Amino acid sequence: MHQQENSQKENVSSKSAERIKSLRRKQLDPEVLIDRILKGDKPALSQAITSVESRSFKHRKLVSKLIEGCLPRANNSVRIGITGVPGVGKSTFIEVFGNYLINRGKKVAVLAVDPTSSISKGSILGDKTRMAELVKQENAFIRPTASGESLGGVARKTRESIILCEAAGYDTILIETVGVGQSETVVHSMSDFFLLLKIAGAGDELQGIKRGIMEMADAIVINKADGENKKATRQAKSEFRKALHLYPDRENNWKPKVKTCSALYNSGIESIWEMIKNYFKLTESNGYFQQKRNEQNKYWLLQTINEELKNNFYKRPEIESALEKELKAIEDQETTPFHAAQRLLNM
Amino acid sequence: MHQQENSQKENVSSKSAERIKSLRRKQLDPEVLIDRILKGDKPALSQAITSVESRSFKHRKLVSKLIEGCLPRANNSVRIGITGVPGVGKSTFIEVFGNYLINRGKKVAVLAVDPTSSISKGSILGDKTRMAELVKQENAFIRPTASGESLGGVARKTRESIILCEAAGYDTILIETVGVGQSETVVHSMSDFFLLLKIAGAGDELQGIKRGIMEMADAIVINKADGENKKATRQAKSEFRKALHLYPDRENNWKPKVKTCSALYNSGIESIWEMIKNYFKLTESNGYFQQKRNEQNKYWLLQTINEELKNNFYKRPEIESALEKELKAIEDQETTPFHAAQRLLNM
Repeated sequence: MHQQENSQKENVSSKSAERIKSLRRKQLDPEVLIDRILKGDKPALSQAITSVESRSFKHRKLVSKLIEGCLPRANNSVRIGITGVPGVGKSTFIEVFGNYLINRGKKVAVLAVDPTSSISKGSILGDKTRMAELVKQENAFIRPTASGESLGGVARKTRESIILCEAAGYDTILIETVGVGQSETVVHSMSDFFLLLKIAGAGDELQGIKRGIMEMADAIVINKADGENKKATRQAKSEFRKALHLYPDRENNWKPKVKTCSALYNSGIESIWEMIKNYFKLTESNGYFQQKRNEQNKYWLLQTINEELKNNFYKRPEIESALEKELKAIEDQETTPFHAAQRLLNM
Repeated sequence: MHQQENSQKENVSSKSAERIKSLRRKQLDPEVLIDRILKGDKPALSQAITSVESRSFKHRKLVSKLIEGCLPRANNSVRIGITGVPGVGKSTFIEVFGNYLINRGKKVAVLAVDPTSSISKGSILGDKTRMAELVKQENAFIRPTASGESLGGVARKTRESIILCEAAGYDTILIETVGVGQSETVVHSMSDFFLLLKIAGAGDELQGIKRGIMEMADAIVINKADGENKKATRQAKSEFRKALHLYPDRENNWKPKVKTCSALYNSGIESIWEMIKNYFKLTESNGYFQQKRNEQNKYWLLQTINEELKNNFYKRPEIESALEKELKAIEDQETTPFHAAQRLLNM
């Protein structure tokens, strides 16, 4: 009897394994997946992004086909980068701003670039309790950050995810970053509009100037302009305006704006969206919008090549050990960096 | 008779050509040249640096031998980087500072990093009327900047020139830069001590913060602290001190100082040298001096490799034309930067 039972079990499990396998094959069929993405199917979009985030070779081939199939329907969104230090209210702002856009008929995708997430084991969009309203919306798609590896890797994944979201019909892409290391530069290099969230009196103005973030911002939005904070916000607004005047004019003729809002009390959002619309009106009419996207693409082409050239060189095992020896020789003042480099390159 | 004369002329000119050739062979004999450099022979040092600056393959081989022969006697100087915007009085300062050091028994070499010199056809140390006193000194060696090409190329040449100067007995190397583009970072990455020259009321404080120069400076020296300028200088000093306090402490335990001087009236120079000596005392005792040089060498090793990897890839003629095609395809939205990069890398 025991034997019979086991045999039945095996039979059932082998059947269900067969079913799962067949389902997987179907799911990984790029034609099927592309078709579902173009119809706006969220689970298909999620699955495609999971493939984008995978490191396996099988997935890389699938992703190539997915991107190829999605490209003709991509590039028709506006991409808005949003940064700000922790505590500035980024999630509340994105929740309120996203809902506002959806109420105006937009389809909103929220992505995140956070190269630290692999270390902290958390991710800036990973907490499901955040953006509680936005996640429930039919026309919102929220994707936590790709688990970190190199910033270059995260960048590629985010850019490919943008294409997939656009093909799925999302016309407004919000790309959030917490601003660690170079992550703001990465998000800036894939956004059409770059928004810097601030709060009054945080005292990180110098930080913003030093790290070149003020220079990248198309707008500074001072959040938490409510209650007792209102006066300080007005003062901060005037200070940020003055600071922005110190920068030279931009080639796109856009003068970076300073706005205030209270995401918590849902005030000031409309004025921010009007400003962003004005930016797109200006840059589409003067050709800068497409020019910037072309430059971004060129940047990413060269960036990807340069990263790969380095990876291919340094990961060679014989280089690894020779590099160690040359470093030792340099430390012992037996050679110069330039001659050591030449020897390594000649290997 | 005419014929005879001609024949005599030919004879003479062929003899003198032979002599010049033989002289050249001797001059290019690395053993001879190294020997003369180690004896402190200035024309030999000049000639070696000319070889360093040459792009010809023959010279590269000679330079390798020269550097090899000079290395055991190098690395025994202090290297001081000096930067400041035009008009701040860099040459007057270096003239006075250099003479001060020579009077204290030092041997001073002055080099320059100026990647713009190829464009402007001038160079920051090229004007012979500058540093009129210093050039006459037996114990001074002044070398105009290597004619520009890439900043990486200028960097290599300057670092190799430093080694040659050190082998020739120069114990204090002053490296001047005008601060265009990344040239300050380059000079900082080959200096032990980095000095930022300023004048009061120039209003370029934000510039210094933005471009990360304040962060690199081990000292800010406000020049032209004379006459009517004295009061403004005192105020500027206190402002720069405040600004420096905004930066976190350094790992070498050195607190960047603010000094004032008047190079024109030769005042304040002693105090600057005392400060620099204190810096070296501190960093030699806590091990940071050698640690920094090791890190600089490592940086230049990797930098050189990365530059070469890129050069080797992009200069391939088939890559050049394929790159153009891929850029066109990206512009026409037929591919993504990442797939285009992959195709180019697979070539």
